[in-house]
Amino acid sequence: MSSTPTALPDPMTLREVYQQQQPYTRMTPLLVSESLSKLIHGDVLVKAESLQKTGAFKFRGAIYRLLLLTPEQKQQGVTAYSSGNFARGLAAAGKILNVKVTLVMPADAPENKIASAKKLGANVVLCQQMEPSREEAAQKLSEDIANQNGSILLHPFDDPEIIKGQSAVGVELMQQLQQQQINCQSLLCPVGGGSLVAGCSLLFDPFHTSTQVFGVEPEGYAGMNQSLLVNHLSRAPGKNLSHCDALLARSPGKANFEVVRQTSVKGLRVSEHFVVEAVQIAFEELKLVLEPSGAIALGALMQYPAQFRGQTVVAIATGGNVDKALFTELVNK
Amino acid sequence: MSSTPTALPDPMTLREVYQQQQPYTRMTPLLVSESLSKLIHGDVLVKAESLQKTGAFKFRGAIYRLLLLTPEQKQQGVTAYSSGNFARGLAAAGKILNVKVTLVMPADAPENKIASAKKLGANVVLCQQMEPSREEAAQKLSEDIANQNGSILLHPFDDPEIIKGQSAVGVELMQQLQQQQINCQSLLCPVGGGSLVAGCSLLFDPFHTSTQVFGVEPEGYAGMNQSLLVNHLSRAPGKNLSHCDALLARSPGKANFEVVRQTSVKGLRVSEHFVVEAVQIAFEELKLVLEPSGAIALGALMQYPAQFRGQTVVAIATGGNVDKALFTELVNK
Repeated sequence: MSSTPTALPDPMTLREVYQQQQPYTRMTPLLVSESLSKLIHGDVLVKAESLQKTGAFKFRGAIYRLLLLTPEQKQQGVTAYSSGNFARGLAAAGKILNVKVTLVMPADAPENKIASAKKLGANVVLCQQMEPSREEAAQKLSEDIANQNGSILLHPFDDPEIIKGQSAVGVELMQQLQQQQINCQSLLCPVGGGSLVAGCSLLFDPFHTSTQVFGVEPEGYAGMNQSLLVNHLSRAPGKNLSHCDALLARSPGKANFEVVRQTSVKGLRVSEHFVVEAVQIAFEELKLVLEPSGAIALGALMQYPAQFRGQTVVAIATGGNVDKALFTELVNK
Repeated sequence: MSSTPTALPDPMTLREVYQQQQPYTRMTPLLVSESLSKLIHGDVLVKAESLQKTGAFKFRGAIYRLLLLTPEQKQQGVTAYSSGNFARGLAAAGKILNVKVTLVMPADAPENKIASAKKLGANVVLCQQMEPSREEAAQKLSEDIANQNGSILLHPFDDPEIIKGQSAVGVELMQQLQQQQINCQSLLCPVGGGSLVAGCSLLFDPFHTSTQVFGVEPEGYAGMNQSLLVNHLSRAPGKNLSHCDALLARSPGKANFEVVRQTSVKGLRVSEHFVVEAVQIAFEELKLVLEPSGAIALGALMQYPAQFRGQTVVAIATGGNVDKALFTELVNK
């Protein structure tokens, strides 16, 4: 991995990307959380990407990535691995743009994510192998399949074009904040592989705005946090049990890490206890169904309220694709 | 009750009402339901008022009603009865505008609605009496309390100013439809006392738009349906068991019925089975927490898909204030 800074896409380019995907995506609302605002003695806004088409922000990157394919590539179809939300997003994007999609998913991915990818017409291959990690095993299998069937191999997060696609959350958020004349001091992004936090940090970097971007990870899977601390790509132990099935990548994507080290992103680790409380508060106060991974940024505010005292904070709620059995268990905990 | 048509407020007046309440309310999103669209071979949009401040549209009428009070009246405070959502809305509005609020609520109102009204600083009196109906008993008690403490008595729905306040849902919806160049053929509004359907029908009346407005009620509590059929204020039996705790009024408000008979509103009755399915689809597909009353308009599409075949339909999802035990039960049914 090179440590020479590479040229990053500028906000103007990212606004164009947003415009390209806009005919297919939804503008998601920015909702006030009164209880979290009270907790930090400030203002907390939740960007509800759980209300995005397919129930997660991942659709944005997926549709943009497929829009970039040439007609020949569209004919070939695409193959990708994903723990769930990118799978569902890519399946939906493929259906809309008439591109054949093959998905490799971990066998322990949530049922609702597997079922909805299939329902959208994707060819789903379940990967039983979990070593060296479920992500790496699935990646290897997707490479093999793409080689065999001659389709285009896509990476769910470690791809500069996917970063651009996910940055649309940041473009849209910036427009909403400007319209409402809100100045936000902190922006909290859940991190799995890190494409969302990378994309958002391109908009909200400290050189051009007064916003500090945070990458929020579950304890035990904080590969981005760790990489930022030691300033090179690093690997989390990945031994804890976590309900954050979308955030279990042990290392950030290389392309994502290249961006965030240049945009001064900071890291936060959230324990499972606060993830569960965040799912509950989303249900009780905001009337949002959030999956644990999607609620983790709210959990960060509950775990570290003093750090955000008096601030205006935006927490991105990235997805709502949770099995009903797990949701029931967490809400009643 | 007079059958002479009274002058109805015009759209211009209602847009001004909307502007007055706008500093306090949220713009709620319009979400596509792909499964319901498929079901009716058309386009179904859900106006998610469950994401309104206090978790229900009722806040709109409440804040507007309190904005109309004179300084002297504000000093006196207000008293109202409500099964829950108006209570919560009024308590929040009172807190914002510094008006003392006394609420009479049925003793069997959902716990979360009682708790949140109390938390917002309202003086809550529980009414144990259920005869001749829980609504009528609570109304009587609220009159007695207002007489005793010299506060202003407000009616939760049967008040021309509350109708104007709730019409804001229609004003906002119309703006959203125009912006997105959507022509909607049917608008489905849940009906308890009928202030929402009355308010919306003032905007979407068949003389000025091509939209048919429907008032949607649970079986057994379809007082508005029945009144429209016989063209005078009529009373539903109210004997069924229903989870739609916000829609158990047996007769529509007089003021509301006066409006809807002039605006050619039609009625629909939804059985409990489809209410439960609607709560499930909101959870699974839309990632919204809806209370049964708030989901009933979606249930109407599931019960009567042929009636809306090929149309563009907007269903208003009025609220999300559901106890977690009931939500868990319904989602897993």
